[in-house]
Amino acid sequence: MPRSPDELRALVEERLDSLRLWPELHGQAESVRYSLTVGGKRVRPVICLAAAEACGVEPEEALPAACALELVHTFSLVHDDLPPLDNDEERRGQPSTWKQYGEAVAVLAGDALLAEAFRLATAYDTPHVARELANATLGMIGGQYLDITGTASDEATLHSLKTGRLFAAAIGVAVWVADLSEPAQRPWRAFGEELGLLFQIVDDILDGDGYVTTHGADVARRLADEAADRARARLEELEADTSVLRDIVDGLAVRTA
Amino acid sequence: MPRSPDELRALVEERLDSLRLWPELHGQAESVRYSLTVGGKRVRPVICLAAAEACGVEPEEALPAACALELVHTFSLVHDDLPPLDNDEERRGQPSTWKQYGEAVAVLAGDALLAEAFRLATAYDTPHVARELANATLGMIGGQYLDITGTASDEATLHSLKTGRLFAAAIGVAVWVADLSEPAQRPWRAFGEELGLLFQIVDDILDGDGYVTTHGADVARRLADEAADRARARLEELEADTSVLRDIVDGLAVRTA
Repeated sequence: MPRSPDELRALVEERLDSLRLWPELHGQAESVRYSLTVGGKRVRPVICLAAAEACGVEPEEALPAACALELVHTFSLVHDDLPPLDNDEERRGQPSTWKQYGEAVAVLAGDALLAEAFRLATAYDTPHVARELANATLGMIGGQYLDITGTASDEATLHSLKTGRLFAAAIGVAVWVADLSEPAQRPWRAFGEELGLLFQIVDDILDGDGYVTTHGADVARRLADEAADRARARLEELEADTSVLRDIVDGLAVRTA
Repeated sequence: MPRSPDELRALVEERLDSLRLWPELHGQAESVRYSLTVGGKRVRPVICLAAAEACGVEPEEALPAACALELVHTFSLVHDDLPPLDNDEERRGQPSTWKQYGEAVAVLAGDALLAEAFRLATAYDTPHVARELANATLGMIGGQYLDITGTASDEATLHSLKTGRLFAAAIGVAVWVADLSEPAQRPWRAFGEELGLLFQIVDDILDGDGYVTTHGADVARRLADEAADRARARLEELEADTSVLRDIVDGLAVRTA
């Protein structure tokens, strides 16, 4: 029996808690840990672990890669919340990192999360896990740049970079951990693209922006449902037990937070 | 004949100029390139290339790792200059990145430099180049944290983290690119440690802080000379043509800027 999303999430929480948090970081570990604990549902790492398990790898083996994804996600939240960027004082009902520790420490906490993500991602024998993560991170930063400068051609492009890229990378790093050949990765990556799109459109529906701005709420809902259908179809093409990923798709399609 | 520091520096400049600068980054490439061009003497990448060549590797092969070092160095300058940190409006006589592009773009430019550094460092078959870089980056960020919070036990510790770690990594990534075994790396790393210490003490002498604060100017000068002597002795122990590295040590010991 593959492990459930809740079981996988517990693995992620446990590993995040036990990160050495960083002899090199001296007192800064506190602000970094704070940033990680105000984080949320661990969606990206859970998807990564579920995909790895479906590819025949023990989830434990994929944990460093999964946690690296969460650290990159958290890095982006910590920096996006800064006053010169989104100026958010709260994150999930708690003070954002800069509000709690000051702007200077928050800049460094984000930096440390990103560097630690790469330390985790380079724990594998292959450099591909870290390379995948670097590419996704660059896309995400590019999206944030388009956002704060108001220079995106359209909101869908912007959100595809800000959200979709790291989501797709959750599958991308999993197939590298599972050591699939590049041809064998392709159908998995096709699933990852649909999953990223699904997450992004539902995000836009919940926030009332992006696809909703461009296409209206009804069309956005239809596009989300179509992305979910395509993601399910992609899973059915895979010769693997993708039942947990199927549950995750179903959950993402109807999520309300 | 091994290539001179000036020839190696020209290689670095050429590669930095030709970095694709990042389809994913859209308009942000401009601020990232600006940050790189106000940068300086390319000391770290030149050392990396010289060490790689002394280990029998073509400098071109070490260029991605060398440029990654320079990108990490530049990332740290861009973030350190930000108003909540050091609040420096100038960098080498030109507006610092945040002064030129605003704080939000400067935060993201630093982030992009760090992520791009890891893309370059993961271009090798081995993950060790990127892992070495991640560890050095975490040390550097820890040092900056101690600096801005005023919580370092002493200034030498602080500067060893802020400066010495990335310097030592210039040798560390070179020996990985050269595929030396870990035992064979040891004497090289011992040299890298002395080189980092030398650079750091001379930095403190030029800035009148760190070792100068702790020990006084005369003792700091003596400690720098001793570090240079030890670095030269380490080079002599190596069975390699280390003449270029010897020139670099001599130059670092007497530098005035």
